[in-house]
Amino acid sequence: MKHSIQTFLRRSTLAFRCLAIAAVVSIATISSAQPTLFGFNDSTSAQQRQMETQFDTLIDRAEMDRWLREFSSQAHHVGSPKSKENAEAIAALLRSWNYDVEIAEYEVLFPEPLTRELELVAPTRFTASLMEDPIDGDASTSNTDNLLPSYNAFSTDGEVEAELVFVNYGTPADYELLERYGVSVAGKIAISKYGGSWRGIKPKLAGEMGAIGTLIYSDPADDGYGPGDVYPEGPYKNDSGVQRGSVMDMPTYPGDVLTPGVGATGDVNRLSREEAPTITQIPVLPISYRDALPLLEAMGGAVVPKEWRGGLPITYHLGPGPARVRLKLEFDWKMVTAYNVIARLEGTSMPDQWIIRGNHHDGWNHGAADPLSGIVAMLAEAKAVSRLAESGYPPARTIIYAAWDAEEPGLIGSTEWAEHHAAELQEHAVAYLNTDGNGRGFVNVGGSHVLERFFNEIMSDVEDPQTGVSVQQRRRANLRINGGSEKIRNEAKNRSDLRISPLGSGSDYTPFLQHLGIASANMGFGGHSGGGSYHTMYDTYEHYSKWIDPGLIYGRTLAQFAGRATLRLANAPRLPFDFQGFTDNVSGYIEEIETLADDMREKTATDNLDIDSGVYGLVLDPTKTFGPPIPKPAVPHFNFAPLKNALARLEDSAAAYQNLAMTGAAASANQNYLLYTSERELIREEGLTGRPWYKHHIYAPGFYTGYGVKTIPGVREAIEQRQYNQVAGQIDIAAEVLTNLAVRLDELVER
Amino acid sequence: MKHSIQTFLRRSTLAFRCLAIAAVVSIATISSAQPTLFGFNDSTSAQQRQMETQFDTLIDRAEMDRWLREFSSQAHHVGSPKSKENAEAIAALLRSWNYDVEIAEYEVLFPEPLTRELELVAPTRFTASLMEDPIDGDASTSNTDNLLPSYNAFSTDGEVEAELVFVNYGTPADYELLERYGVSVAGKIAISKYGGSWRGIKPKLAGEMGAIGTLIYSDPADDGYGPGDVYPEGPYKNDSGVQRGSVMDMPTYPGDVLTPGVGATGDVNRLSREEAPTITQIPVLPISYRDALPLLEAMGGAVVPKEWRGGLPITYHLGPGPARVRLKLEFDWKMVTAYNVIARLEGTSMPDQWIIRGNHHDGWNHGAADPLSGIVAMLAEAKAVSRLAESGYPPARTIIYAAWDAEEPGLIGSTEWAEHHAAELQEHAVAYLNTDGNGRGFVNVGGSHVLERFFNEIMSDVEDPQTGVSVQQRRRANLRINGGSEKIRNEAKNRSDLRISPLGSGSDYTPFLQHLGIASANMGFGGHSGGGSYHTMYDTYEHYSKWIDPGLIYGRTLAQFAGRATLRLANAPRLPFDFQGFTDNVSGYIEEIETLADDMREKTATDNLDIDSGVYGLVLDPTKTFGPPIPKPAVPHFNFAPLKNALARLEDSAAAYQNLAMTGAAASANQNYLLYTSERELIREEGLTGRPWYKHHIYAPGFYTGYGVKTIPGVREAIEQRQYNQVAGQIDIAAEVLTNLAVRLDELVER
Repeated sequence: MKHSIQTFLRRSTLAFRCLAIAAVVSIATISSAQPTLFGFNDSTSAQQRQMETQFDTLIDRAEMDRWLREFSSQAHHVGSPKSKENAEAIAALLRSWNYDVEIAEYEVLFPEPLTRELELVAPTRFTASLMEDPIDGDASTSNTDNLLPSYNAFSTDGEVEAELVFVNYGTPADYELLERYGVSVAGKIAISKYGGSWRGIKPKLAGEMGAIGTLIYSDPADDGYGPGDVYPEGPYKNDSGVQRGSVMDMPTYPGDVLTPGVGATGDVNRLSREEAPTITQIPVLPISYRDALPLLEAMGGAVVPKEWRGGLPITYHLGPGPARVRLKLEFDWKMVTAYNVIARLEGTSMPDQWIIRGNHHDGWNHGAADPLSGIVAMLAEAKAVSRLAESGYPPARTIIYAAWDAEEPGLIGSTEWAEHHAAELQEHAVAYLNTDGNGRGFVNVGGSHVLERFFNEIMSDVEDPQTGVSVQQRRRANLRINGGSEKIRNEAKNRSDLRISPLGSGSDYTPFLQHLGIASANMGFGGHSGGGSYHTMYDTYEHYSKWIDPGLIYGRTLAQFAGRATLRLANAPRLPFDFQGFTDNVSGYIEEIETLADDMREKTATDNLDIDSGVYGLVLDPTKTFGPPIPKPAVPHFNFAPLKNALARLEDSAAAYQNLAMTGAAASANQNYLLYTSERELIREEGLTGRPWYKHHIYAPGFYTGYGVKTIPGVREAIEQRQYNQVAGQIDIAAEVLTNLAVRLDELVER
Repeated sequence: MKHSIQTFLRRSTLAFRCLAIAAVVSIATISSAQPTLFGFNDSTSAQQRQMETQFDTLIDRAEMDRWLREFSSQAHHVGSPKSKENAEAIAALLRSWNYDVEIAEYEVLFPEPLTRELELVAPTRFTASLMEDPIDGDASTSNTDNLLPSYNAFSTDGEVEAELVFVNYGTPADYELLERYGVSVAGKIAISKYGGSWRGIKPKLAGEMGAIGTLIYSDPADDGYGPGDVYPEGPYKNDSGVQRGSVMDMPTYPGDVLTPGVGATGDVNRLSREEAPTITQIPVLPISYRDALPLLEAMGGAVVPKEWRGGLPITYHLGPGPARVRLKLEFDWKMVTAYNVIARLEGTSMPDQWIIRGNHHDGWNHGAADPLSGIVAMLAEAKAVSRLAESGYPPARTIIYAAWDAEEPGLIGSTEWAEHHAAELQEHAVAYLNTDGNGRGFVNVGGSHVLERFFNEIMSDVEDPQTGVSVQQRRRANLRINGGSEKIRNEAKNRSDLRISPLGSGSDYTPFLQHLGIASANMGFGGHSGGGSYHTMYDTYEHYSKWIDPGLIYGRTLAQFAGRATLRLANAPRLPFDFQGFTDNVSGYIEEIETLADDMREKTATDNLDIDSGVYGLVLDPTKTFGPPIPKPAVPHFNFAPLKNALARLEDSAAAYQNLAMTGAAASANQNYLLYTSERELIREEGLTGRPWYKHHIYAPGFYTGYGVKTIPGVREAIEQRQYNQVAGQIDIAAEVLTNLAVRLDELVER
């Protein structure tokens, strides 16, 4: 039986394979049992599900496809005519569906390049073209009206000339290795691969290390012909493609660089540009691998370590030089208007409790994948929600759809709106639900862990369009086979709920979650939609429709998924926040941090011993410049007890609340208020050390990773950055926020 | 203190660094305490050491350098005029040092190419040049007299035309993955990278899978511009370089393909060429990455998995086709004479006990690194040994120096001599000590585990020329930092003796160890002498002297190292065989094999479950051809008790023998005989299943790895190849040889 099915699966055509898969999966397809939804009782749950069935029939892929084609017909970055046009078109659609729509405008700083010059001046000469090639068969790539050339927004102006140093991905670990080679970037221009960290980290760290400029290129091993055929033969990055993107110091604060913490309305006090701490210290320019090749080829010095090699047909060298480049960048530091479309559908019974659902509308270019594939799903959802309201299913809570402008340069539209409306949002916002560019494959959900259980219900209820099983089951299967650790693979088999990822940064949830303490989530599909169009001129309708999600079948699934999230939060008599899922995850983070400290302690001790005893001196090749590791101060033992005691208390409170919630009793308005504002207990007005804008003490983007999340960031980053004397204080702070949440839950139970 | 030394080390010049290293290593430099050598008593040990001090002064690097230059002045493969000339020159030197020298001749089959044609015939046309470029500044590369073009010896003749299939390294695991893509090589031509297994495995497996031809190329990611600058800018393989080499089925038997098991003397019965099972079934040709590029670039089909990607600036595809090639190979199947130089220095007190010390003299080309860097060290050693004999230190046992011919095409010279003299060797040979091409860096010793302790004494006594510490201490430091597993790193810190590697194949020890059961070892230095000259036209004096071991400083160290091994074995009153080191290693192998079975059992069960339940169907991209793994039969539990009981008994016997040996009493002639013939207890006349030439049941080259060793091969390969019904029988056989060795040790103790 095993072999015959197997043989059949392998030999059959693709169409047959899909059928065969459905046949052998015993637990396949969406359960017809339909358990009672968390936060509902049997009757309200059945009614909610009935509405969702109707909701699904209202999602129209053909209409989504028309919107996608129309909105992506031209470049539509913030400040461009098309961005305003799209905002108005989106507003008109939402108005036509009876939403109460406003366009919220903010005046923000947005640099556009005036001068971009990059030349190799020694030992040979080469002038980088800095141009992307139009593609036959992709008409959009010939429509360059208002298209921004390749650049990194919020690079400072400057003209520099110096030798190149190759810094791999430009992460802290890379600089540590570079130091072992005796190579410094001080006074040099760093050339870094894209990847390994968020792009903004590269000029930030290079600048801290003394570099006077940074180039970032997409290495073909990571993002080019290595992973697959290049556009137009395949979806991957061709040799002229350049990833644009912001390099503002978002881990310090996102949003308009001149107005940290306040909405960039017309009359607000603004920093001068010189004062703005999130503009880079040194000029930085992204380039294609075609432009990078002559530069890298002209480099000398030590050969890079094996892990640093890329996919160009050369030996990679660290430098410095002899390749010497001149880089000149000048920007038009314009004030532009960001147009956020805000559409409101008033709740019937709990209008003061708001569900906010957003996706940005601005792109770096034609932006078919990023962000329009997400926004067309959100629009389909918004239309269906309004139709349901008209047909007798109005939402109990208020739903607000937001189409953000200026996300690309640094989450500017959403951040300014969130800062502008901070007080009312902290009072009224139940949750913020985000989407962005969408792909094909497995569901990805990141978010506040109190929503883990909520999203697992949705994952179980939405069908994967390629296999017919639930998207949860498909994700579970993927983690079971491809999960990155044994723990993950085992949990995929045995844990009843799949974990949702903690959120770092990279899209518009950041101001809601990490600045305001609003429970947030980010949803999307991916894993089978490889490609290299991201932030290049090739992110077109043609590329998206051919290579990423042909027919928008996952666009429809995203609308179904996010629509359920919106509608269930809007209607649940008791808000479906689960604190046991939260404590289970936090418990894991504390274990991780303890292990991190133990591993660092052991590694540091071993390394220092091996360095002191001269072992490295015996191992390294004396004819090479590569030296021993740099000794580091020993890692002390830390007292994690306060944090673990606070967690233990919270676990008790969470269990007690769970007993209450499981009675199925509807929550009072006040109980619901106490529930959704419980996430506010996890933020502190003081914020994180050195970056007070970030106030959440469970989730933050890493100060040296950018988008990558750091959970319990105060404690974790103090240890990672070897600021040992700060650890105890940060443990106390983390314990305090957990205790505050426990007190809140006790209050809920007592009422 | 830590930091200041560190800073000093990093900032100082190289010359300073070496001094600094010596200064901080507290346990550095060779101990002056000079413990009594194993197998000697205090007095004979002191005398031996005194002799060795004198020995060191006799090693002359300048003379070695002259020999190296002279012997490598022209290509000198078996059958070439220069090979005969070198043999005669070596014989003349040894005769001049008063050795009793003969040139032992064997008549062996050796194919030389007549026709080598490789063309891409579709979808475009390209004719491979199959030529290596001469290099300005390396005069040897312009001296192509008698130079063999690039080819694989013992490829069959043939002309084939078919589509290409990319098979990565052409290992069993690669074909398993290829099957998941639905790609078969049947009727196709396989194109494989060099590496991952011994080259002869590639056409062997491709042929078993139905391919009609094989191309092997050196991918620049592994062996070209990836690891470093290419020749002549650096030591690495340039785009025209081709690795020659034998592809005879050495894991079945090495040596002359027509005379398995017997010496290829003039009158012996020979197989016909058609009968010879070790000639490949399909034609195979090695090519450069310059010639491979147009072929690979023209391929289509699925994109290769990430781990299979190489370093060419293309997307790698699996095929089959559309690239279609025509390959035509014709060979002159010549009978040539192999000239082994055999030089004998009669022992004074135990002339019937022979220490055999060998290194081959034939090369694929100029052969400076391979093999001449080894042979000049052996000659320096032989000269010094003869000078010592003249000055009052004649060896107690007979020493035989052997310079083998025809190693490159398949260990032919050594194998024929060993087969020819099998009976007397089994009676008289104490040990076989091998060297081959030498490099720079760390000492590497592989060999019979009874010699582990012996070699650790030598490692402790020989000084590393770059750091001034013992070569053992330097190797220990390297394992401590770079050891491939935690076990290895911990043992480097804590185990008193460093392990010596078990021997697979790849040089002339194989017939002695694995066919005749003579304790053997292979010695050399490496780790800091990267490069790509191996078996190319660029293995010249110029390349070697510039990039591998300038000044032959490690050539001298090798002579010191191997010379000590020869002299100590020749003089030890009790042969320094240690059986506790042997049992400790064998115990580890048994554990490894049990873990292997357990891991295979668990993995097979998990995979089969995931396949049967359809999980893979949910994970894989339905738009791609990549399918689930192939289900495999469940792995049963095996009874390892007989093997472990035999080992336990052997451990007792080894401990008892150790007690005897540690008394310091000299051994009788008969005790020494029983000692050195103990290795014969580990072979069985029947040999391994399917390859009776290989008779050793502890060490064998892997049937599907080629050079890579398989310890306790009968048991291990039966499990690996999932021949479960053979495992119990193989466990019994392995138990039997261990028991036989225990009986032998008991006999030694009782006498």
